[in-house]
Amino acid sequence: MPVDPRNTIANLQELRALTADDHGAQRIAWTPTWLKARAWFQGKLAELPVEHHLDAAGNSWTTLPGESDKTLILGSHLDSVPNGGWLDGALGVLAAFEVLRAVAEDFHGKPPITIRLVDWADEEGARFGRSLFGSSAFAGTHSIQADRGRTDRDGIRLEDALRQCQIDVERIGDAASERVKAGAYLELHIEQGPVLEGMNLPLGVVLGTKGVERHAITFHGQEAHSGSTPMAVRRDALAAAAKLALEIRPIARKHPDAVATMGSVKTFPGIVTAVVGRCETTLDMRDLDASVLASMLAEARAASERFAAEEGCTVEWSRIWSIEPIPFNPKLIELCDQAVQEIAGSSHKLPSGPLHDAAEVARAGMPVVMMFTQSLAGLSHNPAENTRIEHLELAVQAFDRLARNTMQWLIAN
Amino acid sequence: MPVDPRNTIANLQELRALTADDHGAQRIAWTPTWLKARAWFQGKLAELPVEHHLDAAGNSWTTLPGESDKTLILGSHLDSVPNGGWLDGALGVLAAFEVLRAVAEDFHGKPPITIRLVDWADEEGARFGRSLFGSSAFAGTHSIQADRGRTDRDGIRLEDALRQCQIDVERIGDAASERVKAGAYLELHIEQGPVLEGMNLPLGVVLGTKGVERHAITFHGQEAHSGSTPMAVRRDALAAAAKLALEIRPIARKHPDAVATMGSVKTFPGIVTAVVGRCETTLDMRDLDASVLASMLAEARAASERFAAEEGCTVEWSRIWSIEPIPFNPKLIELCDQAVQEIAGSSHKLPSGPLHDAAEVARAGMPVVMMFTQSLAGLSHNPAENTRIEHLELAVQAFDRLARNTMQWLIAN
Repeated sequence: MPVDPRNTIANLQELRALTADDHGAQRIAWTPTWLKARAWFQGKLAELPVEHHLDAAGNSWTTLPGESDKTLILGSHLDSVPNGGWLDGALGVLAAFEVLRAVAEDFHGKPPITIRLVDWADEEGARFGRSLFGSSAFAGTHSIQADRGRTDRDGIRLEDALRQCQIDVERIGDAASERVKAGAYLELHIEQGPVLEGMNLPLGVVLGTKGVERHAITFHGQEAHSGSTPMAVRRDALAAAAKLALEIRPIARKHPDAVATMGSVKTFPGIVTAVVGRCETTLDMRDLDASVLASMLAEARAASERFAAEEGCTVEWSRIWSIEPIPFNPKLIELCDQAVQEIAGSSHKLPSGPLHDAAEVARAGMPVVMMFTQSLAGLSHNPAENTRIEHLELAVQAFDRLARNTMQWLIAN
Repeated sequence: MPVDPRNTIANLQELRALTADDHGAQRIAWTPTWLKARAWFQGKLAELPVEHHLDAAGNSWTTLPGESDKTLILGSHLDSVPNGGWLDGALGVLAAFEVLRAVAEDFHGKPPITIRLVDWADEEGARFGRSLFGSSAFAGTHSIQADRGRTDRDGIRLEDALRQCQIDVERIGDAASERVKAGAYLELHIEQGPVLEGMNLPLGVVLGTKGVERHAITFHGQEAHSGSTPMAVRRDALAAAAKLALEIRPIARKHPDAVATMGSVKTFPGIVTAVVGRCETTLDMRDLDASVLASMLAEARAASERFAAEEGCTVEWSRIWSIEPIPFNPKLIELCDQAVQEIAGSSHKLPSGPLHDAAEVARAGMPVVMMFTQSLAGLSHNPAENTRIEHLELAVQAFDRLARNTMQWLIAN
């Protein structure tokens, strides 16, 4: 029996009714609403011949043991941002659940290889600012030292919130033991961008997650009276920043999938009667190719120095955060492309700008691929996030097809 | 006997010692330190044959009656911004005081025309946000309706603060009665800008105060994820604002004295991971020629609409405040230029970007001129505000010369 995508839609609607309010989904990790979502999900497992447990980092593992202990992992995350959408994360978990159910049924409870479903803990990092929490513990890329000091906006420490959920922050690295025998990881997710909608395609294949260079850039000029300071003698920090805000665009546009964003500009003193003496900006650049990303960063830095000099200013850069590009597995990309073609008629390969748990799993050295389904208007992290029901149904079918083909591939290898 | 500029320097230093702390001058209008400065000044009048009173708006008038009731007014303001400098306002009052003293001495207490010294109330508007308070009441351009609702940052109402100083807000318009028989108004002030220093000149003649157009300009685009939104489909409100920040500069540079400033930029949501959906900016444009100012405003508005369209955004403008240019009196400009030439050897005529009480006096239809003395590094509203002692001394001498020549002119007309 193939999957029945209507089961997934019904479960998504049930979860929304249980965990959203008028402002959207409220399944923030390490909160009662998140625990309620997980308890609801665990209730769904009762009819299946599966084992369930939480690992040392709070990841929720559901295992359907097979003839072989070679393992295919399917997963995503049930947690959401505050006022989030009904699909981000939840679609991946509940589509994987339908595949697990169908596989269990097809093989009378004993498939040829072991199938596991993982609901990663705290993908979003919405409460403590640490995204990909559970998957990084699984991958061994977590950082207890940094996590220990984290607090939420009420001053509650991450480690105390974890303890409430029976997680000991000192032991989260033990989640790496779940990697044993894992042969591949598959994740279905909404695109959270406008590319597939723009191409009128329901589904796409994810090539990997883009590397990110995230920097704070501050221009220092000279605060001056807006009325008494002639144009010719100004050292306007905003002018230098404005030039950079415009220049990052041609720098990114040289490369087909690259993006560069100045998301924040702050002016000091920031009053109508003063030339800007200091301008603080942020830059976020992304590409799937590490050398492209490095050259974009170098070009932006050189441009900022040129603009600072032109305006009689100085500029300083400070790295906020960065991550290398994570390319997914070529063989799994091929299998995913086949599955999408078979179910949807046509396919498109694209990189992911947003990070995903799949990137952490790939960093652990495991073959990984993701499938995207179209997002309407590219909206996400927003109660207006949506995808057409017929696209969600195609997504569940194509993800099932991918899982079946990946099982065959694992058996043969 | 000519003026002795050393008296003015000594008085400025005495006032600084009395009313400044480690952070600068603290003579904010309607506060105890301001009242202390005024009481100190009144004490200085004791030896002179003068009458002193406060008018209905709190302006402080010192009158040396002459043979004729034709009147020359000299003035400026003793109030300062918080953490202000030692010269802004105080120089004009204390130079005028030295001129008054010298004239009284020269004419044995009875000059041919009446000389009055005015210390305007609340030029800075530092506490209640209403600058040129006393001079606008004198000129009849004040607005009781708007002033009644004003509060300081502690919530104290302007009218209650005034009552503490024996001023009834309903009656401030009665200050207009001080205009009777006034024939001319002269004011000495520091430049508060870098023009004279750049030309290596101690003194300059002020052509008038520039008109000001002050607007809030908001660009509306589309907030979007910095990672998942391709460059080609963005509607980046910051990009439109950055283009305008750069375009206002060539617009202003077409005119020799025009200035245009974007002093504040605010980005929303203003986070590193989002394309800016809304960008709020401010624009301040100034010129001495009303038609130039109007054309600059029209060009900036057209540019903003063009940039909004280019970026898929919309733009809205909202006027914060505006004032027309106030040209000073041609005959007095000529007399001032002569005085500056005679004392300093060379002169320069320039418009004032900052507003001054003299602008309000001119709006009342009275012949007015101002003299500027060089500011070091163009600094003002700052404890580092300074002028070379020899320049201050030349300023007092030239201002005395201007006052004597203006007396002659008033007698002859």
